[in-house]
Amino acid sequence: MMDLNSDLGEGFGAWSMGDDAALLDIVTSANIACGFHAGDPAIMRHTCELAVARGVRIGAHISYRDLAGFGRRAMAVPPPELSDECLYQIGALDAFARAAGDRVRYVKPHGALYHAASADREVADAVVRALTRYGGLGLLGLPGSRLAAAAAAAGIAFYAEGFADRAYTPAGDLVARGTPGSVLGEHAALAQAISIAVHGETRDVDGDPVAVPAASLCVHGDSPGAVAMARSIRDALAAKGIEVEAFS
Amino acid sequence: MMDLNSDLGEGFGAWSMGDDAALLDIVTSANIACGFHAGDPAIMRHTCELAVARGVRIGAHISYRDLAGFGRRAMAVPPPELSDECLYQIGALDAFARAAGDRVRYVKPHGALYHAASADREVADAVVRALTRYGGLGLLGLPGSRLAAAAAAAGIAFYAEGFADRAYTPAGDLVARGTPGSVLGEHAALAQAISIAVHGETRDVDGDPVAVPAASLCVHGDSPGAVAMARSIRDALAAKGIEVEAFS
Amino acid sequence: MMDLNSDLGEGFGAWSMGDDAALLDIVTSANIACGFHAGDPAIMRHTCELAVARGVRIGAHISYRDLAGFGRRAMAVPPPELSDECLYQIGALDAFARAAGDRVRYVKPHGALYHAASADREVADAVVRALTRYGGLGLLGLPGSRLAAAAAAAGIAFYAEGFADRAYTPAGDLVARGTPGSVLGEHAALAQAISIAVHGETRDVDGDPVAVPAASLCVHGDSPGAVAMARSIRDALAAKGIEVEAFS
Amino acid sequence: MMDLNSDLGEGFGAWSMGDDAALLDIVTSANIACGFHAGDPAIMRHTCELAVARGVRIGAHISYRDLAGFGRRAMAVPPPELSDECLYQIGALDAFARAAGDRVRYVKPHGALYHAASADREVADAVVRALTRYGGLGLLGLPGSRLAAAAAAAGIAFYAEGFADRAYTPAGDLVARGTPGSVLGEHAALAQAISIAVHGETRDVDGDPVAVPAASLCVHGDSPGAVAMARSIRDALAAKGIEVEAFS
Repeated sequence: MMDLNSDLGEGFGAWSMGDDAALLDIVTSANIACGFHAGDPAIMRHTCELAVARGVRIGAHISYRDLAGFGRRAMAVPPPELSDECLYQIGALDAFARAAGDRVRYVKPHGALYHAASADREVADAVVRALTRYGGLGLLGLPGSRLAAAAAAAGIAFYAEGFADRAYTPAGDLVARGTPGSVLGEHAALAQAISIAVHGETRDVDGDPVAVPAASLCVHGDSPGAVAMARSIRDALAAKGIEVEAFS
Repeated sequence: MMDLNSDLGEGFGAWSMGDDAALLDIVTSANIACGFHAGDPAIMRHTCELAVARGVRIGAHISYRDLAGFGRRAMAVPPPELSDECLYQIGALDAFARAAGDRVRYVKPHGALYHAASADREVADAVVRALTRYGGLGLLGLPGSRLAAAAAAAGIAFYAEGFADRAYTPAGDLVARGTPGSVLGEHAALAQAISIAVHGETRDVDGDPVAVPAASLCVHGDSPGAVAMARSIRDALAAKGIEVEAFS
Repeated sequence: MMDLNSDLGEGFGAWSMGDDAALLDIVTSANIACGFHAGDPAIMRHTCELAVARGVRIGAHISYRDLAGFGRRAMAVPPPELSDECLYQIGALDAFARAAGDRVRYVKPHGALYHAASADREVADAVVRALTRYGGLGLLGLPGSRLAAAAAAAGIAFYAEGFADRAYTPAGDLVARGTPGSVLGEHAALAQAISIAVHGETRDVDGDPVAVPAASLCVHGDSPGAVAMARSIRDALAAKGIEVEAFS
Repeated sequence: MMDLNSDLGEGFGAWSMGDDAALLDIVTSANIACGFHAGDPAIMRHTCELAVARGVRIGAHISYRDLAGFGRRAMAVPPPELSDECLYQIGALDAFARAAGDRVRYVKPHGALYHAASADREVADAVVRALTRYGGLGLLGLPGSRLAAAAAAAGIAFYAEGFADRAYTPAGDLVARGTPGSVLGEHAALAQAISIAVHGETRDVDGDPVAVPAASLCVHGDSPGAVAMARSIRDALAAKGIEVEAFS
C-alpha cells in the first residue's frame, strides 16, 4: 500500500500554477496551500471541494509568510511566532475543508519551512506545537528528520515520504537540487518508486542500497511532463499489485 | 441585561493599537481582528488567551483584505470571493480561540465591510453565507440593516448593537462622522447608554424618541479617554441595576 | 503612424503571466506593472531591460494596491493617498528603467483604477497630481475620459488609445465585457485596427461610424492566440503603409 | 562635526511609531522607511516633506520585504533579487524626496538586512550593486563591516555610524542586545557620545579604549525617553563645541 501526495492549490489571485484537476485524479493526499506562500481563499475553497469530490485526503501545506518568494526563502522567525503562523494557516484551511464536507487530516511544511523543520530542532518543535494545539493531525515529512523526531516526542503521527525522481545520498538524504544527477530520468524514477514501495529501499548515488521507509511518494504537477510522470508512477504501482491509497 | 463589545487585537507586527488588557476587564464580547485589516497570528493567539482568561466571548472581526487601509476603504470584491475571504478569517481565528479553550461565537464585520454589509444586499448575503458554511455562529451588527435581514432569511442569530457616543437620525441610523454633533460628549453618551439599555430607545438629533433595539453596546479603547468612557458606561449600567453580560 | 501598447511584467514571484518576450517584439510601448497589482522587483528589472534592448518605450502601469485581486477590484482610496500610491509606483519603476538606460516615459492606470480614473474626476485628478509631482510624464488612456480632461487641465500630454478587438458604443465607449458581441473576432479586429489607424474611426455596435481618435492601439499577450493577433495587427498596419512607432 | 541620524516614517496605514516631528528637530539625517518593513506612500511623502522643511537630509532605510516582522527577521533572499528589492525601495522613496524638493542622498539598511549586510559579503555586495545602479548615493553603516568593504571596493562613499547607548566589544562590535550591560544608561550614553565625537573612541565592556570612527551617531525616537536622550546628546555635543550637521 502506498500513498501519493502532491502540492496543490498553488495559484494566487489571477495567477495559476500546475494542473490541479489532473493531479487530483492521481494522488490520494493533497497538500493544499494556505495563503502564506500561495493559495487565496477562493482557490482554497475550490481545491478542497475538488479533493473531497474525489475522496482525496486534505493536508495543510503550511509555509513561511512569503508570497513574493513562494515560501522558498529561509526566514528567521522566532519559534513561538512561527508556531502561531502555522496554526493560523491550519485553521484557515480547515474552514474550507469542513465546508466541503471533510477536514484537514495532516500537515506538510512547504519549501524553506520543510527544510528548516527537517534540520532544525527549534523549528520542528514550533511546527509540532501548532499541531498539538489544534488536535488530531498527523505530519507528513522526511524520514529520520528533526521533524520526525519532534513528532515522535509529542505523540504526533508521522508519515514518511519518499521521492521517485530524486537521487538519495548514502545517508538517506536527498542529493541537493542543482548537483549533477540529483534529478532522475523517467525510467529510473519509475524503478525507484516501485523499489521504495515494494522494498522500502532504493540505490543511492553510489549504487549501494539505502533504506527509504515511506508511507507516501511525493509527485509533482507543475508541467505536462510532471503530470504524465505521476500517472506513470501510479500505473506502475498498480501493475505491481500495490494498492494506492491514503495513509492512515 | 446588556452586552458590551469592543474591537480588539488591532495591532500588527511591531505596531500596537489600543489598550486591550484594560478593555478586556470592561467588555463582555471581544471583536478580534483576523489578519485582513489588523491582527497577526501572535496577536490573535494572545488576545484569545486574554479573552478566555477573563470569560469574555470571542467574535471574529472580519474585514476586507486591506492592511494598508485598515479595512476602511470600500472594495468591490465579487460576492463569492468575499464569502471565501470571510470564511478564511473565521477559520483562522477559531484555531486560536479553540487553542485557548473556547471557540469563535459570533462574527462582526469591520470598517468598510460593516458599512457595505449593512447597506448592500449582495454583500450581506456573502457574509451570511460564510456563517452558514461554518455553522453555529451569530452575527453582531446594525439593527434594521441589510445584514440583519440576510441573517433572518438564513436563520442566523442576529444581535443588534447600539452606540453610546453617536447621534442617531430620526430613521435610527448613525449621523455620519464629521457632521457637527455626530459624536456625543461624555455626559450625553452615558445618558444614551442607559436609555438604550433600559428603554431600548434614545433621542435623535431632533430631540425626538427613536428606537434603538440593542443587545450590545459598542465601546472603544483607542485612547485613554475612550477606555475611561467604556468604564463609566459599565459602571452606569451597574448603578441602574442592569447586568452586563454577553448576549446569547 | 500608430503606437502599439501592451501590459507587460504581470507575473509575481513564482507566477508568470503572458509571453512578454514575444510581445516586446511587436509593441512600441510597454505598460510595465509596478508591484501593486503584479510585478515584483526582479520582474520589473528584467522587463525594463528587455524593453530597452528592443527600443520599446517604458510606461508605468500603476494600480490600486491589490495583489490578491490583480487590481481589478474598485477601491475607495482617498484621493491624496491614491496620488501618493501612484507616485510610489512610478518612482519604483523609474529606478529600473534608469538602471536599464532609459526612463519611465508615460503612465497608464490599470484595471479598476483605469476605469475609475476614466469616469471619476477626483480619481483622475489624483492620478494627474502624481504625474505633475514627478515631472515630464505623459498619460495613456481613454479618449474623452475624465482622465483626458484632467490631463488637459494640468498641461499633461495625453495619448488616446483604441482597441482593435472591442466593440464600441455610439458614444465611443467600450461595450462592457460579458455583453454579447463585446469582443470582436480576428477578422473584424484587424479591420477595426486599420480603420482606427487610417481614418480615426470605426463602426459602432449599430453599424454607424464612431470616432476613435487614437495615438495607440492596445494589444494583449495573455494567450498564444492573443500574441498571434497582436502580430497580425502589426503586419496589417505595415501592409497599409502605416508606420508602427511609439507616440511622442 | 557630527551627524545625528534616526529611523523615521516607521508607521504603516493606521499605525504610528515614534515621534517623527520631535526627532526631525534634533537629527540631521533621516533614515526613512520605504514600505518593505514600514512606511506607506502617504507616510513617506509626509516624512520627506517634514525633513525637507527642516533641512534634514533624506536617506532610504531599505529592508527585507517583511511588514509582519518589521524587517527584523533574517531572510535568505538570493542576492540578485535582493539587489532588485533594494533598488525598488530607493526609487520609490526618491519620488517623494524629489516631489518635496530634495532627493535621496544616502542608504542605510534596516534591521535584519543591516546585520546581514554587515556580516555577509554577498548581501553587502547586493546592497552596493543597487546603489551603483542608482548612482550618486552614499551608504551609512557599521565601521569595519563587510558593507563598508563592499562600498570601498565599488567606489561608493561610506559613512560610519556610532551608537551612544550601546556597549562595544573589544573588537569594536556592538554587544548583543539582551546581554546584561548591552544598553547604557543616560549618563554613560552622553559620555560615550561625546567621546566618540571628540576622540573617535570609547571604552569597551572591559573598560579598555576601543576606536569608534563615526561620522554619525544613531539616535532613537521610539519612546518619550528616547527623544529626550536624543535631545540631550545634541545639547551635549553643542556644549562641547561640536557642530551637529549632516555628513557630506
